[in-house]
Amino acid sequence: MTIKAINSRNQFKGIIKRIKRGDVVSEVEVDTGAGVITSVITTSSLDDLGLKPGFEVIALFKSTEVALASFSKV
Amino acid sequence: MTIKAINSRNQFKGIIKRIKRGDVVSEVEVDTGAGVITSVITTSSLDDLGLKPGFEVIALFKSTEVALASFSKV
Amino acid sequence: MTIKAINSRNQFKGIIKRIKRGDVVSEVEVDTGAGVITSVITTSSLDDLGLKPGFEVIALFKSTEVALASFSKV
Amino acid sequence: MTIKAINSRNQFKGIIKRIKRGDVVSEVEVDTGAGVITSVITTSSLDDLGLKPGFEVIALFKSTEVALASFSKV
Amino acid sequence: MTIKAINSRNQFKGIIKRIKRGDVVSEVEVDTGAGVITSVITTSSLDDLGLKPGFEVIALFKSTEVALASFSKV
Amino acid sequence: MTIKAINSRNQFKGIIKRIKRGDVVSEVEVDTGAGVITSVITTSSLDDLGLKPGFEVIALFKSTEVALASFSKV
Repeated sequence: MTIKAINSRNQFKGIIKRIKRGDVVSEVEVDTGAGVITSVITTSSLDDLGLKPGFEVIALFKSTEVALASFSKV
Repeated sequence: MTIKAINSRNQFKGIIKRIKRGDVVSEVEVDTGAGVITSVITTSSLDDLGLKPGFEVIALFKSTEVALASFSKV
Repeated sequence: MTIKAINSRNQFKGIIKRIKRGDVVSEVEVDTGAGVITSVITTSSLDDLGLKPGFEVIALFKSTEVALASFSKV
Repeated sequence: MTIKAINSRNQFKGIIKRIKRGDVVSEVEVDTGAGVITSVITTSSLDDLGLKPGFEVIALFKSTEVALASFSKV
Repeated sequence: MTIKAINSRNQFKGIIKRIKRGDVVSEVEVDTGAGVITSVITTSSLDDLGLKPGFEVIALFKSTEVALASFSKV
Repeated sequence: MTIKAINSRNQFKGIIKRIKRGDVVSEVEVDTGAGVITSVITTSSLDDLGLKPGFEVIALFKSTEVALASFSKV
């Protein structure tokens, strides 16, 4: 079975830069064209997918999870 | 009061490209220069912040919201 | 490009039973054969994926999104 | 006080199969009719609810947290 | 069946102050006596639970969904 | 650069009461006027923001993350 498409509006391809492995969850930094995206996933998933620094992945997040902030330059 | 920093690991500056206004929630597309990030926020917030196309904003999302996918090039 | 695997621990195959289309987001009910999973996605995504009742899909959600409740039978 | 109903569209009853205890968060696998649902909750909550393998619980998640993927059988 | 306890660390009792009904999702403002908590739930859930202004409810959210910001008073 | 406003409907000012530090994520309890709000953030963010017990912070969470429950007093 192959996944053709996922509804998540936000999908960014990148290379895993760093993995901080934890007992239950792990922090994964992905270097994408838009900058570094940080993900926290279960360590079980990390091992199931066999993710390692240097691997190419897609970082996905739903639009309902994205907040917006306005800012001033000073 | 001014917010100095937010813990969300993922913060991307960009320009609002498009707003699809809805009765309760609205979809906002932010062009970060290296990819478009889509956010869904309440229309009340959209109006409170006075967000319009062309405005500069920061798109924020927590690392626990980011999933990772491995893929093959074929 | 084909997605091989996604980290989300929770992946359930099912048939789309009902779609309630909205201006910005839409509600999609997926019958997994052992229970209905409801998803709310952007209507843009619904159209991009061309989802319709009768289509087979996978419903995915991260483990950090799942709460647990204890209950009594009375 | 007793909770009568919760808005979360997705509620699945099941038996706790496995608990992977962590310092701050713990991973709980729940065997439901629809398959195994994995939850990550704080270890404080795990202890407050006194959850143990063999206990019956309800796994709850909001519909906005559910993504959908289309797939091909090859 | 009665729900005894839910793992969500954050549970706040309050009175529904205002409901902004939408086609697919609705915005519900809950006055907790020490601040208003806003929730967006599916309109289907709103109707299933029969929620109306003046009703007493509990607003629940997982700790992984809460971001923290530091700020300065000027 | 200073953040002027964030769209999250739910923003509660409070004092950090307790921090349970973990290898990848940490649990932070914030005493707000509305009661204690618990947040789980990455330990990297905890250190970047230099958060400590006694510090004043704002707890933020999106309305789409808030579930509602009806209850009976017995």
